[in-house]
Amino acid sequence: MRKSPHRGSCSPRRIQTARLTPKDTTMDNWLPTLMTATPTEGFELAIKLSRMTIKSTQPDAAVRDRLRPDYAEDAGSLIAVSQVVATNFATIAAANGHWRGS
Amino acid sequence: MRKSPHRGSCSPRRIQTARLTPKDTTMDNWLPTLMTATPTEGFELAIKLSRMTIKSTQPDAAVRDRLRPDYAEDAGSLIAVSQVVATNFATIAAANGHWRGS
Amino acid sequence: MRKSPHRGSCSPRRIQTARLTPKDTTMDNWLPTLMTATPTEGFELAIKLSRMTIKSTQPDAAVRDRLRPDYAEDAGSLIAVSQVVATNFATIAAANGHWRGS
Amino acid sequence: MRKSPHRGSCSPRRIQTARLTPKDTTMDNWLPTLMTATPTEGFELAIKLSRMTIKSTQPDAAVRDRLRPDYAEDAGSLIAVSQVVATNFATIAAANGHWRGS
Amino acid sequence: MRKSPHRGSCSPRRIQTARLTPKDTTMDNWLPTLMTATPTEGFELAIKLSRMTIKSTQPDAAVRDRLRPDYAEDAGSLIAVSQVVATNFATIAAANGHWRGS
Amino acid sequence: MRKSPHRGSCSPRRIQTARLTPKDTTMDNWLPTLMTATPTEGFELAIKLSRMTIKSTQPDAAVRDRLRPDYAEDAGSLIAVSQVVATNFATIAAANGHWRGS
Repeated sequence: MRKSPHRGSCSPRRIQTARLTPKDTTMDNWLPTLMTATPTEGFELAIKLSRMTIKSTQPDAAVRDRLRPDYAEDAGSLIAVSQVVATNFATIAAANGHWRGS
Repeated sequence: MRKSPHRGSCSPRRIQTARLTPKDTTMDNWLPTLMTATPTEGFELAIKLSRMTIKSTQPDAAVRDRLRPDYAEDAGSLIAVSQVVATNFATIAAANGHWRGS
Repeated sequence: MRKSPHRGSCSPRRIQTARLTPKDTTMDNWLPTLMTATPTEGFELAIKLSRMTIKSTQPDAAVRDRLRPDYAEDAGSLIAVSQVVATNFATIAAANGHWRGS
Repeated sequence: MRKSPHRGSCSPRRIQTARLTPKDTTMDNWLPTLMTATPTEGFELAIKLSRMTIKSTQPDAAVRDRLRPDYAEDAGSLIAVSQVVATNFATIAAANGHWRGS
Repeated sequence: MRKSPHRGSCSPRRIQTARLTPKDTTMDNWLPTLMTATPTEGFELAIKLSRMTIKSTQPDAAVRDRLRPDYAEDAGSLIAVSQVVATNFATIAAANGHWRGS
Repeated sequence: MRKSPHRGSCSPRRIQTARLTPKDTTMDNWLPTLMTATPTEGFELAIKLSRMTIKSTQPDAAVRDRLRPDYAEDAGSLIAVSQVVATNFATIAAANGHWRGS
């Protein structure tokens, strides 16, 4: 597992991080962790992740509002959204050790 | 694996959890665990997860009922639903160690 | 790996299981295990899993029979079915340790 | 990893296997192993797995031949086939330890 | 984990690398690492990966600009983009140990 | 991890390999390894894998050239290609231990 000076280690360690353009750094730290207390919250976080991509690809809220009925009232689109959430939930579940301790 | 004060550990430990909006916390704890006794129940839980995303994206039960024939009587949609369930089942199977002990 | 009193452990252990509605418990234990003797049988089980979702989403056999030509004679649907089977096969292969011992 | 009496262990061990209908057992053991000598052969096996699902869902070779131009000369279908192969290749790669020794 | 002479090991070790055509080596090292400091940055990197494939498949920026409204203002396409990002985010999360230390 | 006589082990070991038809063995060893020096090269290899499936399914270069505008100038197809690459990149990243040492 990667150690970094931000993670409790006392010894600074230079690590190479991915190159991000200034545009990328304007987003706040909206996803500080993948840890959640319960699977229910993990599932909600998976939904949130799925929505953030759409927000990132289409930042115009007016356009997103206009598009919402297109997917919220279309069976195929609802299923496609479920697929995205399922993929993100798998990632979050893995992050949380599948909440096996609870 | 992550330890938390909610999980039997005697030492309180501050953990950072994902930021959830008040809207997110109005859902009850409908998914307290991914553990099931058998693969059959795990598969049923995978189906339940798939349905909960649709319920979350389209909370209006009347709209969901109206849409049901669109996917329940369409071959392509049924296959797409199977894909979502397969993805969720993979997550639940991993959570249960693939039920290898049984 | 999760231990449960159903799995050979002598010490009873209360485990929290996923909440299932009465409707969910009416299905028999059709998937008692993910273990198979060979990859061939694992692949057949992956196909079976894929079909069971469709059966669960559309329990009416007459409707399923009516829909079958729609996917069995459509190239795109056949490919989509392959995708579901591939996802389920990955899960079953993981359950069996990829049958590396054989 | 699962041990079975078929895998070199001297002590017989009763294992529960997935229930397969007589129909399922009529297929020969066409997939005895996921092990291949090279990633190239692993990729070919992934293609073979993808084709076997289609063969299983549509056993009529005449229908499959009729459908072939529908996907072999359609960009979207070719991409969809690539997706299935990619999923199967991930499984085979995992089975072979990603061929890291070579 | 693979060791290579480029990674701090003192003993040179000949490793076989994937064959890349001259065309492949004309791209600069735009992805030097999958490590990021936070999940937020990991998510941004996932978005970047998704965009790079499109750039690689369609290098003509004029064509990409012309196509942007087709997906940025289409609900189905936005969901499909989310799926790609979710898949890439799973890879990046795994690379970072799911940022469990933070 | 599987050992084979081709991988530096001095003791020959009979291993069962997947059955490949003569047609399968006519392809050269175009994928000798999944190891790459950098994530950038790993990404390029993922693109290469995605293209090889299409080449295998549609060996006629004239047909592939004819189809290229269908996907290179279609937003939905470009996104679908990204999905295939993302899946293949996950496999290659896993093979390389996510290049964590660099």
